[in-house]
Amino acid sequence: MTVIIVLRETATESELSQVLNLADRVGSDVRRHSPHLLSLTGDLATVDQAVAHLPQVRHVAGVPGQYPCASAQARIGLPSSVRLGDATVGPGGFTVIAGPCSVESRDQLLEVAHAVRDCGAHALRGGAFKPRSSPYAFQGLGRRGLALLAEARRATGLPVVSEVLDVRDLDAMLPAVDMLQVGARNMQNYALLRELGRLRVPVLLKRGLAATIDETLMAAEYILDGGNPDVVLCERGIRTFETGYRFTLDIAAVPVFKERSHLPVIIDPSHAAGETSRVLPLALAAAACGADGIIVETHCDPAAALCDGKQALPTHRLPELVDGVLQVARAAGRLTADRRAGEERELVLAGAPAGPVAAARVVRR
Amino acid sequence: MTVIIVLRETATESELSQVLNLADRVGSDVRRHSPHLLSLTGDLATVDQAVAHLPQVRHVAGVPGQYPCASAQARIGLPSSVRLGDATVGPGGFTVIAGPCSVESRDQLLEVAHAVRDCGAHALRGGAFKPRSSPYAFQGLGRRGLALLAEARRATGLPVVSEVLDVRDLDAMLPAVDMLQVGARNMQNYALLRELGRLRVPVLLKRGLAATIDETLMAAEYILDGGNPDVVLCERGIRTFETGYRFTLDIAAVPVFKERSHLPVIIDPSHAAGETSRVLPLALAAAACGADGIIVETHCDPAAALCDGKQALPTHRLPELVDGVLQVARAAGRLTADRRAGEERELVLAGAPAGPVAAARVVRR
Amino acid sequence: MTVIIVLRETATESELSQVLNLADRVGSDVRRHSPHLLSLTGDLATVDQAVAHLPQVRHVAGVPGQYPCASAQARIGLPSSVRLGDATVGPGGFTVIAGPCSVESRDQLLEVAHAVRDCGAHALRGGAFKPRSSPYAFQGLGRRGLALLAEARRATGLPVVSEVLDVRDLDAMLPAVDMLQVGARNMQNYALLRELGRLRVPVLLKRGLAATIDETLMAAEYILDGGNPDVVLCERGIRTFETGYRFTLDIAAVPVFKERSHLPVIIDPSHAAGETSRVLPLALAAAACGADGIIVETHCDPAAALCDGKQALPTHRLPELVDGVLQVARAAGRLTADRRAGEERELVLAGAPAGPVAAARVVRR
Amino acid sequence: MTVIIVLRETATESELSQVLNLADRVGSDVRRHSPHLLSLTGDLATVDQAVAHLPQVRHVAGVPGQYPCASAQARIGLPSSVRLGDATVGPGGFTVIAGPCSVESRDQLLEVAHAVRDCGAHALRGGAFKPRSSPYAFQGLGRRGLALLAEARRATGLPVVSEVLDVRDLDAMLPAVDMLQVGARNMQNYALLRELGRLRVPVLLKRGLAATIDETLMAAEYILDGGNPDVVLCERGIRTFETGYRFTLDIAAVPVFKERSHLPVIIDPSHAAGETSRVLPLALAAAACGADGIIVETHCDPAAALCDGKQALPTHRLPELVDGVLQVARAAGRLTADRRAGEERELVLAGAPAGPVAAARVVRR
Repeated sequence: MTVIIVLRETATESELSQVLNLADRVGSDVRRHSPHLLSLTGDLATVDQAVAHLPQVRHVAGVPGQYPCASAQARIGLPSSVRLGDATVGPGGFTVIAGPCSVESRDQLLEVAHAVRDCGAHALRGGAFKPRSSPYAFQGLGRRGLALLAEARRATGLPVVSEVLDVRDLDAMLPAVDMLQVGARNMQNYALLRELGRLRVPVLLKRGLAATIDETLMAAEYILDGGNPDVVLCERGIRTFETGYRFTLDIAAVPVFKERSHLPVIIDPSHAAGETSRVLPLALAAAACGADGIIVETHCDPAAALCDGKQALPTHRLPELVDGVLQVARAAGRLTADRRAGEERELVLAGAPAGPVAAARVVRR
Repeated sequence: MTVIIVLRETATESELSQVLNLADRVGSDVRRHSPHLLSLTGDLATVDQAVAHLPQVRHVAGVPGQYPCASAQARIGLPSSVRLGDATVGPGGFTVIAGPCSVESRDQLLEVAHAVRDCGAHALRGGAFKPRSSPYAFQGLGRRGLALLAEARRATGLPVVSEVLDVRDLDAMLPAVDMLQVGARNMQNYALLRELGRLRVPVLLKRGLAATIDETLMAAEYILDGGNPDVVLCERGIRTFETGYRFTLDIAAVPVFKERSHLPVIIDPSHAAGETSRVLPLALAAAACGADGIIVETHCDPAAALCDGKQALPTHRLPELVDGVLQVARAAGRLTADRRAGEERELVLAGAPAGPVAAARVVRR
Repeated sequence: MTVIIVLRETATESELSQVLNLADRVGSDVRRHSPHLLSLTGDLATVDQAVAHLPQVRHVAGVPGQYPCASAQARIGLPSSVRLGDATVGPGGFTVIAGPCSVESRDQLLEVAHAVRDCGAHALRGGAFKPRSSPYAFQGLGRRGLALLAEARRATGLPVVSEVLDVRDLDAMLPAVDMLQVGARNMQNYALLRELGRLRVPVLLKRGLAATIDETLMAAEYILDGGNPDVVLCERGIRTFETGYRFTLDIAAVPVFKERSHLPVIIDPSHAAGETSRVLPLALAAAACGADGIIVETHCDPAAALCDGKQALPTHRLPELVDGVLQVARAAGRLTADRRAGEERELVLAGAPAGPVAAARVVRR
Repeated sequence: MTVIIVLRETATESELSQVLNLADRVGSDVRRHSPHLLSLTGDLATVDQAVAHLPQVRHVAGVPGQYPCASAQARIGLPSSVRLGDATVGPGGFTVIAGPCSVESRDQLLEVAHAVRDCGAHALRGGAFKPRSSPYAFQGLGRRGLALLAEARRATGLPVVSEVLDVRDLDAMLPAVDMLQVGARNMQNYALLRELGRLRVPVLLKRGLAATIDETLMAAEYILDGGNPDVVLCERGIRTFETGYRFTLDIAAVPVFKERSHLPVIIDPSHAAGETSRVLPLALAAAACGADGIIVETHCDPAAALCDGKQALPTHRLPELVDGVLQVARAAGRLTADRRAGEERELVLAGAPAGPVAAARVVRR
């Protein structure tokens, strides 16, 4: 079993060494993920007996799956949050990210971006590089799209979320993008995930359309293990036999992700819906079931969109969407209860690991 | 294509005959589902031209799938509702049905039933006949369970919902049960559906775990076609690759059912959740996405339940559940907006088909 | 864990009582499935120690799942076989069952039946009662279809396989049908399965389209537990996301069924294929992977078929199919190797349970 | 609709221009994939009328999906084949690729490689870079593994198949590898596919575990569209609800791929099987259903394997596997019939497009 040891923030290097030495005696595959988080393979009771009595040890726990950094226990059951511009994706809020499927032109993007800002949404999404099943479909404006996103950010003050397809595009993307999205098709592109782990830019990791919840968390672990602590998970629909819509939105993944991991979880209702009329009901369900936000496709003129127009919400319906999800999130007890939880957390975590969950190094085998 | 012709309520038998004669000339498979609903196979424009000008014809429409009676167009886009004791499953309300998976004893059932009534839920569920994958698992108390359900109904005033497995049990069930549930395993047991179509008892039809939305509506059509107009659909989770919970709750089925059909739709969060802790988030999602209600498993002592205890909500948490779903349903605009819609509907439908959608007879081929 | 105890055929009633008494001391849920097969819930080592030394005890084994009668261990790892007219479905042969989806007319059925016999196939299939997703689709000729099947049997000497939908049809079916088929939609219609367990007629049990391998074996257990030992399993395609054909033929289910159970397994390539051109490749795969036979839809004039014509093999291509599958079965080592295995089995099983695996009665709890 | 125009091999540049001009008048999105293959969006009848009479035009056809280069019609219905060392993957043969999941050591690899050669298999597989769900699992020996593969190739004369995970590894891989494998997780990693399209090295493209048949063909189209004509498809099991094995081998994908595309298709029975005992039945099914070969994991000591040992066939069972699949392939009419078809093809294709299906350029929009 994988066992984690969480140290107190006040632990010194020599106190850490002491724990590492003990861990090495009672287990194997001892890894140091950060100054305050270790994991090893071993027997929980044995590890607990060996180290739990030390003053520098805060918490010892067995973790299911192979994602010690992403596990709920790595933060003693307290959810983490990720900054995105002025917003925080996590407890005490409900983040709305909206924008076009792909950046098509300056006019299109700026018009949508202003609508997104005006309705009170928190961030702008827009694809400059588009993964398309067919090599002959529109693949995005590329670097020109990035420039337009940067302009939209300047014009509206909104942070920008955009998808990365190729490690070789990262240098061009970083100046224009506040959160890098990994699409469903690349969720297990480990070369890309490793590279994102080396950055200090928030990552929005979409679940693959046949990825299990645990596989998604292991994909997140690739990024966390690299030292980048800022990962937001995104449920966007899985593939099933039903053809009445585009993908089956797996709403129950939200509570299960939250049982198993501290990472924030948002929902993409657009790709699952497949059609505009179903976006609102799915977004409301997201707000009710405990998700930390949504990412929605919107367009001023959906019928003219170069990509996924059928599922894009017209911008004039954005206010209804934003008001709706916030009202439901409030009714579901999220905004107030979570704010309280957030405050309690501050108290609880004073002295707990606040730094990044950094690159694991196998200390000994 | 299947085309339906909706007649005005005031249409006389001879006016109906006139329409039947015309329908017979422009199409085939002409069926008379009720005095006010006909269907035929034909070309929509041709049928429209032939009959739409007649004063007794209210509405002509092409319908997708093979479920003219269940189609949204059969009621001109207006949702139907089904009586369940004092409650109405449909627009303007959010119905909560709760109770144990199976009736286990007099004490167990009465204790749960009182808790269900006291928290403001609308109906009591409880299985007397239990379909179990293994022939050696507890299969319910059978007829003794029915007697206990009848007693619980008397004691609490709550209407009772219980599953029917065998047409030969119907005579025994009818005196004790207010709504007959068809379980997921029997959704395509057509011998059973035909028999339910002959009754005038509301039916709760659960979607099969690999049934498409259209197949579910065709199963409902078996019942409607028999002349029983009171069918409530239930989404209870479909089977997918994910093993992190029991079944994948297909929340998007709710808006799609509502696009295609006038029938009420409720959600069973318990079977999908598989574990108690996830029941509330899924129930709130149901309330947010436009469902007409939920059916929830509850038990005074889940750990001691003979069946599905792991997913049963303890009765002491019922008030939180009921309050939560009603608050969210209200925030999602359901209770008020729908009540208004309900009132408008009364006006619109004055003079529209109110009677049962009765047994289709092929008039001519 | 479920543990089974297999007694020698020569065991007397008092020897059986002795074992039952011991079983009762070391376990719970002791069941007597036949004079030679007991099961109980208990610890394998403990049970083994308690009874394995007795001369009347042949075999003690733990069995996975909840299907002791269907488990491979119930026959000490030796496959069972089921008689169907002159043919044997099981080791040492490869059985071809062919015929129309539904009985449509006397001429149609007799023409197909003669083609089936002439190509060397072993049995005739044909539906008199057809389960159809839509209540308005052709539902079979009913009892008139049964009379035609009986006539086709007389005319050709072929045994007849036909689907039962309703327990109330059984009396009419038994005189006309040699093997009762349970369709995929009714695989978990336990009222029907129980009734079939009371008969002494072979049953062809089709896997439900979202049923797991273990659920299928538990459905078979309902029949075996009733005392009917003659069950043939049928893999006919499961439901997945792929829409390039009708159902996904789960070829790997064949070896897994055979690991877990002694029951024969055949494959229906027609429903999975969805189109005629794919029937032959799937049938050859069935013959190669260790299945005991196939059941194929065929029609003299597929384009005119009232049901599933698109997937029906024209009768004139039957000889190619039958020759092909037999050649491949031979190349896969099935026919010879299995015949040898069959002979060895005779030796091994002399003195082993040969009688029916009969109705389980809970002896004690 | 996408329409393709296949020119005769003898067509001159000016004759090609003539066709391009005409295509431009009757359609849009005119693309030139190779000197002999054009595609456009347009009406089939109109295009046919415009160009079919020209002597340089060999064939005009509408193609389903968005994969004109991969479509069966691009080669007038004749299957293509791909060279792999001395073997040809395609009609007239059945190619067996075998080797360890991952290269673990010099001894391990050489021992397996010799066993693979000695049993008559055609190529050696072995992973130097391993995609693993967990960042902490063994990820392959990397470049050292490549050196060992090159050594094993020298020692045995077998061509080598190995997986590429990262475009930045290609330079190191090309000297050591004869066929580059794209794994299921990267099937829609378009940055990687584009890069492979620029090479002239055969590619083994594994179907993603939730990819449809058409999506797989569009992924292949990315490579073909880049100008690399040598793509072999690989069915390796899809993800479904069944947990009785690792993945559901979609055997019916083979005939459907062959209806829609000219590309060779092989099957990976190991990943689907999940356990050694099921590899042989699945491999035999592959040989029977028309696949062009198999790729199998094998290991001298499966229990000690660092990766996927549970599904690795012990090398001492390789001869049984190779003999078995060749015998079944022969019985299924593949080896002889296909050789004949191969010869006929030579005649038919004399004067038909033999060169690479090269990079599409949008000529005009």
